[in-house]
Amino acid sequence: MLVLNGRPVLRVASVGTAAPGPRIDNATLGRRMGLGPAWGQWAEAFIGTRFRHLAVDLESGEPRFSLADLGETAGRRALAAAGLEPSDVDVMVMGTAMPDMLMPTTVNVIADRLGIDQVPTYQLQSGCSGAVQALSLAASLLLSGGHRTALVLGGDVSAKLVDPDMDAAALPPAQLVNLLLFGDGAGALVLSADPSPGPALRAVFTRLVGLGREPGQTLDWYGASRRFDGPPVSEDYKAIEEAVPVLAAESAEEVLDGLEWKPGDLSYVLPPQLSGRMTARIRERMGLPEAREVSCVEETGNNGNALVFFQLERLLSRLASGDRAVGVAIESSKWIKSGFALEAV
Amino acid sequence: MLVLNGRPVLRVASVGTAAPGPRIDNATLGRRMGLGPAWGQWAEAFIGTRFRHLAVDLESGEPRFSLADLGETAGRRALAAAGLEPSDVDVMVMGTAMPDMLMPTTVNVIADRLGIDQVPTYQLQSGCSGAVQALSLAASLLLSGGHRTALVLGGDVSAKLVDPDMDAAALPPAQLVNLLLFGDGAGALVLSADPSPGPALRAVFTRLVGLGREPGQTLDWYGASRRFDGPPVSEDYKAIEEAVPVLAAESAEEVLDGLEWKPGDLSYVLPPQLSGRMTARIRERMGLPEAREVSCVEETGNNGNALVFFQLERLLSRLASGDRAVGVAIESSKWIKSGFALEAV
Repeated sequence: MLVLNGRPVLRVASVGTAAPGPRIDNATLGRRMGLGPAWGQWAEAFIGTRFRHLAVDLESGEPRFSLADLGETAGRRALAAAGLEPSDVDVMVMGTAMPDMLMPTTVNVIADRLGIDQVPTYQLQSGCSGAVQALSLAASLLLSGGHRTALVLGGDVSAKLVDPDMDAAALPPAQLVNLLLFGDGAGALVLSADPSPGPALRAVFTRLVGLGREPGQTLDWYGASRRFDGPPVSEDYKAIEEAVPVLAAESAEEVLDGLEWKPGDLSYVLPPQLSGRMTARIRERMGLPEAREVSCVEETGNNGNALVFFQLERLLSRLASGDRAVGVAIESSKWIKSGFALEAV
Repeated sequence: MLVLNGRPVLRVASVGTAAPGPRIDNATLGRRMGLGPAWGQWAEAFIGTRFRHLAVDLESGEPRFSLADLGETAGRRALAAAGLEPSDVDVMVMGTAMPDMLMPTTVNVIADRLGIDQVPTYQLQSGCSGAVQALSLAASLLLSGGHRTALVLGGDVSAKLVDPDMDAAALPPAQLVNLLLFGDGAGALVLSADPSPGPALRAVFTRLVGLGREPGQTLDWYGASRRFDGPPVSEDYKAIEEAVPVLAAESAEEVLDGLEWKPGDLSYVLPPQLSGRMTARIRERMGLPEAREVSCVEETGNNGNALVFFQLERLLSRLASGDRAVGVAIESSKWIKSGFALEAV
């Protein structure tokens, strides 16, 4: 774990997010998929995700937004909120599971659109812990590399994985659930080694814990030689439901232990955002009853690498001086624990 | 640029590589593609790449090796050469443009097979500068994060991009050239903050220089909603041929300037490895006449994120005490300069 007590202070100077199009409720999604009127209520009760934003137009199935579109908007918002120009950014780190293309990387397309150049840029291939992985790398780069201002990005756009011609009513439940769970979006934050009113990053860690464990999620891609012959996405929801609450509780504990903070010290907790229902279950397992929860998934859907940014945007609007917050994200494809701590000072 | 003079010494303790199957010469490749007997000689004269290794079986078109297979072998070899156990590794960074799947990441599959767990792992989406990007991140992580031993990996397997049923004789020249240029492979190195006989890393940098410049290379992926409707790979060879020699010369100069080394101080130079012919042209443009060249592309083909590891393996077997070497890699999808310097001490 990178513990930043007693080291140069790094601050989250600002956060920006971007969600595509209107928010889509369960009833609307169900109607579009031909799933009947009861489906929306069922989704709300058993999944607990009420809305999501999608990069494809729901009626036509045509893509309307790329990840670069959303990342550019989020990055622009984060820079504006920090009062910075693109030329102030001296390193970029982005996490995504679903880049627009393999090459060029989406982070470099976003850099180009924002007018950022002559700096190192890195794009992580990452799942739900991607925002924390990117944050941890940005922190290491600021501490070691002479950089002062990192633009950290994350997001996912699932448009390539949705077949607009599918017959949703014929889908097996495990695939139908994906339609409900996932949303599209992107987020950005400025991590700064310069003075700023934003909260200080006190600790950040990310750690593979998958040894000998089957993947909880797989996401494939196709090139020229393999025609599409099955859904590229698969999940083992049972494994995810069992493992994530435990890993989340351990991750929060690890952050607290690393900082010698007590659970009672926390004003806020940012739990993993799998779905409305799962997040409630994770929150319960994590304990930390004194901490107020900062969640977004009921409104955003699970937008993967963007989630933590949406949580942080809400957190930053609430933080008061002296407040401490811990965030946790769990990657379930090959099982990564990750967490971080912020303190408003 | 991360200049390591006067900082804790990081050493390249070992390098390992893995190339799939037998090496394939131009005549054999031409025969398999139905391209006629003169093609092999033409390829040798105008491309200058004599051999490559391929992850697909040339006769059947069936994939024989995944990137995880090759990365596992390379990683195992690097660890063995450094006299280390998997449990000694405390952070992993891998670069690839063509991961086996989007999730789980290939670096985590390799970690699992090597028995590496409970450490941070990062997979970069990266092109021909990926090995240097991964090396730069590993250096930052060792300098900032309390880590001692990084396993740095890189590789590419183009099997998904080759259509075994294609009619090569009917391909336009730009696509035909790809068959000649590209090879598959993976490499690994151990970067260590502990004493080791390996050369010291004196500097490393990577920097986007693509502002307003069209991509020189694109590589797309397909999911469910978009059926394959064209080759996922495209290159602007003219732009690459023009830009890479200039960017390579500038990158080497930047490394030398950062360290206040003179061209005459260099024993070895590791130039970008586009093809045999292009590498000769780049080498000429780079100058540095006193430095001996360490290249591999004539024998390995352009295996992307693996190239620098194949060069480093050759370099390490030749380095004598006091020798200085500079390596350069250029990413042409959205244009990244990168370079590094080693010194045998």
